[in-house]
Amino acid sequence: MNDSNDLLSALRAAVGAQQVLTHEDPATDLAAYEQDWRRRHRGRALAVVRPGNTAEVAAVVQACAAAGVAIVPQGGNTGLVVGSVPDASGQQVLLSLQRMNRVRALDAANLTLTVDAGCILQAAQQAAEAAGLLLPLSLAAEGSCTIGGNLASNAGGTQVLRYGNAREQCLGLEVVTPQGEVWDGLIGLRKDNTGYDLRDLYIGSEGTLGIITGATLKLQPQPAAKLTAWAALPSIEAAVELLGLAQRQLGAGLTGFEAMSRFSLSLVDKHYPQLRVPLWQDHPWCVLLENSDSESEAHARERFEALLEAALEQGCVSDAIVAESLGQAHNLWHIRESISLAQSEEGLNIKHDISLPVSAIARFCAETDAQLAAEIPGVRLVNFGHLGDGNLHYNVQAPEGGDPAAFLREQESRINHIVFDSVRRHGGSISAEHGIGSLKAETLPQYKHPVALALMRRIKAALDPQGLMNPGRVLIQEPR
Amino acid sequence: MNDSNDLLSALRAAVGAQQVLTHEDPATDLAAYEQDWRRRHRGRALAVVRPGNTAEVAAVVQACAAAGVAIVPQGGNTGLVVGSVPDASGQQVLLSLQRMNRVRALDAANLTLTVDAGCILQAAQQAAEAAGLLLPLSLAAEGSCTIGGNLASNAGGTQVLRYGNAREQCLGLEVVTPQGEVWDGLIGLRKDNTGYDLRDLYIGSEGTLGIITGATLKLQPQPAAKLTAWAALPSIEAAVELLGLAQRQLGAGLTGFEAMSRFSLSLVDKHYPQLRVPLWQDHPWCVLLENSDSESEAHARERFEALLEAALEQGCVSDAIVAESLGQAHNLWHIRESISLAQSEEGLNIKHDISLPVSAIARFCAETDAQLAAEIPGVRLVNFGHLGDGNLHYNVQAPEGGDPAAFLREQESRINHIVFDSVRRHGGSISAEHGIGSLKAETLPQYKHPVALALMRRIKAALDPQGLMNPGRVLIQEPR
Repeated sequence: MNDSNDLLSALRAAVGAQQVLTHEDPATDLAAYEQDWRRRHRGRALAVVRPGNTAEVAAVVQACAAAGVAIVPQGGNTGLVVGSVPDASGQQVLLSLQRMNRVRALDAANLTLTVDAGCILQAAQQAAEAAGLLLPLSLAAEGSCTIGGNLASNAGGTQVLRYGNAREQCLGLEVVTPQGEVWDGLIGLRKDNTGYDLRDLYIGSEGTLGIITGATLKLQPQPAAKLTAWAALPSIEAAVELLGLAQRQLGAGLTGFEAMSRFSLSLVDKHYPQLRVPLWQDHPWCVLLENSDSESEAHARERFEALLEAALEQGCVSDAIVAESLGQAHNLWHIRESISLAQSEEGLNIKHDISLPVSAIARFCAETDAQLAAEIPGVRLVNFGHLGDGNLHYNVQAPEGGDPAAFLREQESRINHIVFDSVRRHGGSISAEHGIGSLKAETLPQYKHPVALALMRRIKAALDPQGLMNPGRVLIQEPR
Repeated sequence: MNDSNDLLSALRAAVGAQQVLTHEDPATDLAAYEQDWRRRHRGRALAVVRPGNTAEVAAVVQACAAAGVAIVPQGGNTGLVVGSVPDASGQQVLLSLQRMNRVRALDAANLTLTVDAGCILQAAQQAAEAAGLLLPLSLAAEGSCTIGGNLASNAGGTQVLRYGNAREQCLGLEVVTPQGEVWDGLIGLRKDNTGYDLRDLYIGSEGTLGIITGATLKLQPQPAAKLTAWAALPSIEAAVELLGLAQRQLGAGLTGFEAMSRFSLSLVDKHYPQLRVPLWQDHPWCVLLENSDSESEAHARERFEALLEAALEQGCVSDAIVAESLGQAHNLWHIRESISLAQSEEGLNIKHDISLPVSAIARFCAETDAQLAAEIPGVRLVNFGHLGDGNLHYNVQAPEGGDPAAFLREQESRINHIVFDSVRRHGGSISAEHGIGSLKAETLPQYKHPVALALMRRIKAALDPQGLMNPGRVLIQEPR
């Protein structure tokens, strides 16, 4: 108890008393920090600490390291794998980056943007836009997620096909190490071969190797026009064929390729009829395509129409529309983004964020669909996702009329095994873009190559020998 | 001596006696393995070992680890920083990947190519081309460098602007660890967030953390047309302005942007007059641009001409030609690629492979040119490179008529300091694409952030505690 008080005093000295929130003050509600986004877990923090700059982050980490107290870093707390909330012990310090939300610099000639880690993604997008440039990281939570969280989890989203994950959009990092040192790696260089790639080691490490406090991101020129099309397809094989055709004909112009099964669209139609989902009833799959053009809208439309005509002729597309206005394009994207919500309206479900070689997608779906249907009669599959990246959200909904809570209790573990075993057989990954967090930390060793896992453990032990950075995430403790 | 003999026996058992070459056999010439590409260093190996597959590599590493003998991995031995030849001790094992040169698999629907690490870059390019696809890694040494070496050194080249370094073109790796375990990470996935990014840690680690034995690379659709233009410019500021304009107007179509100073072109003109360098005499800079188009040659030409007209109007281009034929385009690229050779014809020189934020290039050149001219009268600067990536080959040639060897002896260290200090002031890197090797290992600690250097040392010690993997490269031993 005295130890805790000493630490709290040190934290208050580091960031100011009003930026150290504890349960001792009954007026303070820490739910927003302690409850995870999907409401899978509610933890209890020793304290929520809100540093205002990098030096304060370093001071907080030093104080915790000296006290041997674990730190859970948190950005917008929108992660999907329970990676940024404290455990139930009441002994962990929650370090929120929210106050560090500044845009530090924009260099238009170098096409770079440097921000604090707590900068909201949307604010970073807007800073780029204000300079006539594009930050092409885009995901559903962009109004509340932070750049630091995006990088710690190597976020994906809808434009990975063209611009890559968060990793590919980052040139430099500022990091506070588990010892409380500051590594200033905020470079704005496309090429730098001066040693090990620490940047990419920190990106995707989910706060287990240190705390990202700032980042320099790549920007892109704004395309002259961006058009959206909606195509109905006879099968998922056809979707893979259309993807290849679109990549050949549009080249880098193809900036979005989202596939949606009929059942996933039927849920949007059922729960949000006002969205008027087009073409879904008579076709097993629909695909949303985006074409970004550096020339003109007329050119974008001409290229898009040529693609869709060729696809109709080949038979991989049965019907298609190109959005005539920004409003119509926005509505089509809104349908795509409403699938998760419609699924929640339908009831509890089991989410899988998997990736596969594009060439294995159709076979994976056929085999896994059949196996699930055989083993769990009536099971409903909500299959949609970033097909252009091989990334499916292969979600499983309870049979119609059943009790979803009981279904999850009884079937979740078995269904996960069926899906993940099939993913492995087809050369895929059990976490494409959401990460591991604590939700999948126990599953990971069953599917990760043992040598890779051993290398990860060595790196963790080398950089965080006290094991205080976001413990229990990504790597669970080895049995001693 | 007995220890060496035991090890040699173990190596012969691992790979077959005829794949273990030593100086004991007077008929065997090991120069090709022991001499570095730029002839800066000639080492002496205990043995040259040539495994034929990954299991044999693992067996060799295990034998060396058991004997406590260091290993120097080598691909095509075309590196520029003395990173792949043994030291002079006669105690290191040179592990050549040359026999592992197969293309393992090509997956056209997934746009991936899996190869042995010893596969020659050109052979990999040709395998892609035979399937109608593009492997867009391209560099001068492509006829002899290997994919493993490209990845170990994170090679750059002329298309980084559009497709990224070797790092961005690799999805998966197979690696033999310093303990002789095999990590099979040959995935063909665009998204995989299941733990630390070991792939990118090994890429660019120059053989100091283990041996890359195989890789899965990203392929691209072949563009429908590729055109080359040559523009003459009034200044390097104008080159930066042209780059911005080209990025806006051509978008991802801009696949090459190489700048060449008048003096660098004058050397090509002097030593290879048959190449007929265009437009160089009356303009301080020339730029080679490449436009890749997914539509047609006519469209590519129209867009290219529109760009150059706009640039002429803005004044950032003084004169320009668009190549009318493949032959003419090839000749223009040949001029660019002949600068290094022309420089060698002119005499010994000091090479700098630096990168800068694009926005800092003009200022860097003005300041550094002036400082060198003031401190070393008559010094000649051969300045050219991948301006689109901020990467300059800022090379320094002895004053005309002087003794180049004496110049290097007396001035190299001083000139390096002037250039690298200026690079640091402008936020740049002292090694953009060549790496560190042993050539820059002693310089690195002066310019690398100390926290980054400490993190690198921790990782090295964690993964290679015996210090046997390519010792003395990247990180020199810490004073004990």
